Amino acid sequence: MMASESQNWVFMVTAQTPTNIAVIKYWGKRDETLILPINDSISVTLDPSHLCTTTTAAVSPAFHQDRMWLNGKEISLSGGRFQSCLREIRARACDVEDETKGIKITKEDWGKLHVHIASYNNFPTAAGLASSAAGFACLAYALGKLMNVKEDESQLSAIARQGSGSACRSLFGGFVKWIMGKEDNGSDSLAVQLTDEKHWDDLVIVIAVVSSRQKETSSTTGMRESVETSLLLQHRAKEIVPKRILQMEEAIKNRDFASFSQLTCADSNQFHAVCLDTCPPIFYMNDTSHRIISIVEKWNRSEEAPQVAYTFDAGPNAVLIARNRNAATSLIQRLLYYFPPNSDDLSRF
Amino acid sequence: MMASESQNWVFMVTAQTPTNIAVIKYWGKRDETLILPINDSISVTLDPSHLCTTTTAAVSPAFHQDRMWLNGKEISLSGGRFQSCLREIRARACDVEDETKGIKITKEDWGKLHVHIASYNNFPTAAGLASSAAGFACLAYALGKLMNVKEDESQLSAIARQGSGSACRSLFGGFVKWIMGKEDNGSDSLAVQLTDEKHWDDLVIVIAVVSSRQKETSSTTGMRESVETSLLLQHRAKEIVPKRILQMEEAIKNRDFASFSQLTCADSNQFHAVCLDTCPPIFYMNDTSHRIISIVEKWNRSEEAPQVAYTFDAGPNAVLIARNRNAATSLIQRLLYYFPPNSDDLSRF
Repeated sequence: MMASESQNWVFMVTAQTPTNIAVIKYWGKRDETLILPINDSISVTLDPSHLCTTTTAAVSPAFHQDRMWLNGKEISLSGGRFQSCLREIRARACDVEDETKGIKITKEDWGKLHVHIASYNNFPTAAGLASSAAGFACLAYALGKLMNVKEDESQLSAIARQGSGSACRSLFGGFVKWIMGKEDNGSDSLAVQLTDEKHWDDLVIVIAVVSSRQKETSSTTGMRESVETSLLLQHRAKEIVPKRILQMEEAIKNRDFASFSQLTCADSNQFHAVCLDTCPPIFYMNDTSHRIISIVEKWNRSEEAPQVAYTFDAGPNAVLIARNRNAATSLIQRLLYYFPPNSDDLSRF
Repeated sequence: MMASESQNWVFMVTAQTPTNIAVIKYWGKRDETLILPINDSISVTLDPSHLCTTTTAAVSPAFHQDRMWLNGKEISLSGGRFQSCLREIRARACDVEDETKGIKITKEDWGKLHVHIASYNNFPTAAGLASSAAGFACLAYALGKLMNVKEDESQLSAIARQGSGSACRSLFGGFVKWIMGKEDNGSDSLAVQLTDEKHWDDLVIVIAVVSSRQKETSSTTGMRESVETSLLLQHRAKEIVPKRILQMEEAIKNRDFASFSQLTCADSNQFHAVCLDTCPPIFYMNDTSHRIISIVEKWNRSEEAPQVAYTFDAGPNAVLIARNRNAATSLIQRLLYYFPPNSDDLSRF
């Protein structure tokens, strides 16, 4: 009886991690397994109460295998990326004791115990809104908490990176730099916080969901094909991005929206240019994305200083970064003017 | 009476020049006035009985100024490009005599006589189908004939070039290379024929008109903005195009459709990538263009060898080059399947 009862405890931890949006893009790996990028990147982390992943990780002697549910649907954990994260976290597990529940798990136990993971995105998955970034960051963080891992955020980021590259940037708020690193084993390819979320809190991020459909070309496949076939990619990574990273760090430090906006838009466009230079070409943006860009460009040019920056990840959805609340309000008015809600949508009000 | 009668003669010449489609693209000038490009380019000249410009150039003592009509509408000749072509041709004018009409024009007369020019495109103007290429080539050719200019096609091409860069390539049939040249005065920036129209006459060119609207960004403005702002453009011009030109010449010489197709598609995509890397970004292709590319890419991959190459100039219209008549027939069937004519169009049959 005691034995079977002692098998029944479940110990669990829930974590929430926001998505992040790159303003200097990551595109191309130098190592596919360890997920090591060919250039540094910089992102802004969204408010955790908006686009985020919520993950519960549970452990119990009653679990017979590691299992995971994404948005309520069981998915396979057999992929190398999940296994890397699980293995790396397990290797760093420490003793856990919950006296009230009478649970005691030693460092050595973690190798034998199985976990169940439930993860939810409150926004479209695989539609170019960095769902895997939030997802793997949250997975690494929740498992780390569960297993009492002592590593700091940067060290955890190197683990999350092995799940999804950009996940490493979601372990901090504010502006975050993913340093590509030099080591072959990836130990120095990790994220550092440039500024916290209070440093530039005027900024308002508006996401215009152009399509919530899953993209045709996954980021992983797209990147691989770009690295193999684009003749512009290496030039971008080696000659252009290093300078842009320095300029972007400076713009963020000084809260210089004009420079920030110029660099953000140019880098987004250049990333999509590299996609187009890939064989076969990859189109993540569509006519609606192009229209949004034109609207923002014309508006910015008609003002004394830019009001809004745009950036598009591996999908058609626009991430619009307004310089302040006024600009964001005006932006939304403009979007509603150019893209009026259709009558189906209106009937919902 | 004699005096006034002698004022009434009109001497005229009509010429027809096909448009040409670049398979290695020209994008970017090193000299805006002389129209000197930053890289070599290669084009295929269309069958003159299809997309072409027909230009009649007339001279008469009764004409009081140089005038021109394009598609029946008078346009200004005051632009530098028209003036360059007129000046260069006039400078090379020779004696002309038509005994039956009793017309005698000496070399010196041409400086005082005025011309009237009527030009028609049998296809959409300024919609990214190289209308200005055919137009200025035909203008230079018709004026050259009218004024009995002795220059050969390559020398005429250097004059047509000053009207519209790509016009220099329309003075030959078959495959044509525009050599960028090194001289500051542009004297060595001219077109040469690589192979005549019989060398590879299996090829069938199909133009899918996606939109006949005039493009938003003219090629001239687009190129200037790309040269000023794209960080990828110079790399393309200096490092990528020179190698591609050699590969393309080899593919054309050997009628190697697989290489030809791969190079043509890649170069078209890279040109549009550079447009996207421009600030503000230029979008010449739209969702329909993207769909055509995807259809062709998938089809080519499903066959043992590529059947069709695609290339897009500064507009959304697809130029599709099929390896032979069978491939062209199959291509048209596929296009009709994916883009069925709408009922309005059908009612015309």
